[in-house]
Amino acid sequence: MNRVERPLGERAQAMIDALASITAEPGKLTRLYLTEEHREAARLVGEWMRRAGMTVRMDAAGTMHGVLPAGRAGPGSNRRLLVGSHIDTVVDAGRFDGTLGVIAGILAVEEMRGRGVSLPFELEVLAFGDEEGVRFPKTLIGSSAVSGALGDTMLDLADADGITIRDALLSFGGDPDSLADEAYLPGSTIGYLEVHIEQGPVLDQAARPLGVVSAIASQGRYRISIKGEAGHAGTVPMDIRHDALAAAAQVMLTIEEIALKHAKASCVATVGEIKAMPGAGNVIPGLVEFSLDLRAATDEARTTAFEAIRYRLRNIGAKRGVLVSVETMHEKPVATCAPRLKTAIAGAIERTTGKKPIALMSGAGHDGQAMISLTDIGMIFVRCRAGISHNPLEHVEPEDLGTAVEALVGTIESIATDYDPGE
Amino acid sequence: MNRVERPLGERAQAMIDALASITAEPGKLTRLYLTEEHREAARLVGEWMRRAGMTVRMDAAGTMHGVLPAGRAGPGSNRRLLVGSHIDTVVDAGRFDGTLGVIAGILAVEEMRGRGVSLPFELEVLAFGDEEGVRFPKTLIGSSAVSGALGDTMLDLADADGITIRDALLSFGGDPDSLADEAYLPGSTIGYLEVHIEQGPVLDQAARPLGVVSAIASQGRYRISIKGEAGHAGTVPMDIRHDALAAAAQVMLTIEEIALKHAKASCVATVGEIKAMPGAGNVIPGLVEFSLDLRAATDEARTTAFEAIRYRLRNIGAKRGVLVSVETMHEKPVATCAPRLKTAIAGAIERTTGKKPIALMSGAGHDGQAMISLTDIGMIFVRCRAGISHNPLEHVEPEDLGTAVEALVGTIESIATDYDPGE
Repeated sequence: MNRVERPLGERAQAMIDALASITAEPGKLTRLYLTEEHREAARLVGEWMRRAGMTVRMDAAGTMHGVLPAGRAGPGSNRRLLVGSHIDTVVDAGRFDGTLGVIAGILAVEEMRGRGVSLPFELEVLAFGDEEGVRFPKTLIGSSAVSGALGDTMLDLADADGITIRDALLSFGGDPDSLADEAYLPGSTIGYLEVHIEQGPVLDQAARPLGVVSAIASQGRYRISIKGEAGHAGTVPMDIRHDALAAAAQVMLTIEEIALKHAKASCVATVGEIKAMPGAGNVIPGLVEFSLDLRAATDEARTTAFEAIRYRLRNIGAKRGVLVSVETMHEKPVATCAPRLKTAIAGAIERTTGKKPIALMSGAGHDGQAMISLTDIGMIFVRCRAGISHNPLEHVEPEDLGTAVEALVGTIESIATDYDPGE
Repeated sequence: MNRVERPLGERAQAMIDALASITAEPGKLTRLYLTEEHREAARLVGEWMRRAGMTVRMDAAGTMHGVLPAGRAGPGSNRRLLVGSHIDTVVDAGRFDGTLGVIAGILAVEEMRGRGVSLPFELEVLAFGDEEGVRFPKTLIGSSAVSGALGDTMLDLADADGITIRDALLSFGGDPDSLADEAYLPGSTIGYLEVHIEQGPVLDQAARPLGVVSAIASQGRYRISIKGEAGHAGTVPMDIRHDALAAAAQVMLTIEEIALKHAKASCVATVGEIKAMPGAGNVIPGLVEFSLDLRAATDEARTTAFEAIRYRLRNIGAKRGVLVSVETMHEKPVATCAPRLKTAIAGAIERTTGKKPIALMSGAGHDGQAMISLTDIGMIFVRCRAGISHNPLEHVEPEDLGTAVEALVGTIESIATDYDPGE
């Protein structure tokens, strides 16, 4: 087994390094949607797909599709199991986020062909171009097109240079007017699998190379504003102040406390941005604005936590004589992984690693959030050093890369074994 | 009595309005040290002083001095009682801060001459040019020159345009090389009195026009920095975070709590500036920096509160696994008003208003902080609407202006009555 894994990991590493060299900034990895770098990366991925025996095409949204025909004709052999991830990156990114999932799909096809595995369905590897949402004020464009979840109001959204998605698609070689045609027919797909680095510290701390994802978190982003009363830092006695920042401090501690209370539902709450106005050392803040990012394993847990936060906010506001308001920026429902895919993944990880895997929530967003409107989703998480991601220090051990591909192969084989074309 | 007060208040209001029209920005009141506006305001103040019967001169630092000779020759008749305040303003200022004290001094001289009061000492009105410290990175230049507390290292400090204090003094008509000669001889002065708006809400809430100041607060300004660990808002479980902003929130609440606990010592603590880094809604803050402004009625109370804050900071840092550091930006010791001047002021206020006055600490800084190194200080606070200051909404009722001048006259008369030239 070790003999097989090592070359796999090394092959994966070489492919990841090759993709990492395609960047807008020398010395840094930055590859945004519909750029020259994206085109170059898509071309390389297409070449690898072809070499692995797949039929390749780029779709209207710039997504690369590689299809491996079914190994044998029969009932249900025209349905497809999808495997994918994304090849765009954040600015000054790590090299594993996204690309690992695409490469794992290609290597899984190579491995299965090499081992003479014959599948009773088609296998399709997808390399989406926009999961990070860095260039345009829109995200998951490729996976939303495939899953039929893409609205048509997004084409006029523009990047920082004023270039619209429509124009960028046209010059990339995509087709803004055919995006709707990319939607797969309900029933034509068996499921969507994705291998992705965890981007968190849980697997690393547990010393496990892989984990099975239970769900992609329910997420809400909010903007909280507290209006108190500005005043001279020296002349207003403590007991008659309406200090907006002191109120915000109490709110922030309350948010932390409520998230900890909902830890079993994988609740996490983060205040990442804060602004106190007027912002002088000798003036009591009259207005404070801060962000709240709230996630949990279920919509119910997130909603419950949010309501608890809102209730306490009102109390703190009333007690301190400050005006508190909460604006919802966006809310994304939970994307729960399908039990049958979780079972297949867990079994494959156990066979590959010899241990029952940890199940964990994905706090980060993924293409599965779009794909779930088309089909069942399942995800394999791969440990990354110290949980660091979106950073050049992002690191996965080559051995873990191989283990991840093995587990993906095992998952696909398990789905094939259990495949009931009439289901 | 009422007949006398009304005209006094109206005269004070007219003089304040005349000074408020001298500004760098039409429609706003902005009058910085050693500017054209300062020169124009100083000229007008000098004219008023002369008309009130004083001998006028501008000193090397741009301070206007108006001296009323003693009413009768005799032992100690060459010593001086000083009355003053400042005629510079902050940017977009209110019209009473500083100017009221200068005008009250001039009107007190007018009133006493009108009433035939004869003083056994000289009375000097001072109009300082730099109390706000807005133009240069230095404050209390005029009062420090008079009190002999001005170092000689400040002349090369420059404003935002690169103009040094030396050059600004020269083009204003001051004399940078004679600043040291302006220092009054120890023993030549009887005390320093200042009428000033409270700049806080205590008198307004207590419905009292005037109050007697017990001390100008002991003040410390600090910069606190908390280094935690940045991370993805979705992927790091709550219980293993080292969130610098959550730690800062706990610290800020602790600071508030400690200041409240020292309320009897007029302790006030303010966090006015805060910065969380990297400052993205979906990233756990790894570094937070914030200011702390801490004041109290005694140096001991401030030090005790500060040590309590520092102790709790260490505990919070240790418990949360974050690195906390505190940098002292500056510390100013308390300037305690002299009991004999407080007694004179309190008696005069009681005679003028019919009520025993409230004693209160000045949380804001004043020229008295420099003057105390020369002589005893005493301050009369005047209520301003809602405690608002450093703002165009700053407001004092005309009647209160008159009451303040009356109380100042009463204070001077009381000091004259008790004057012991041999003391």
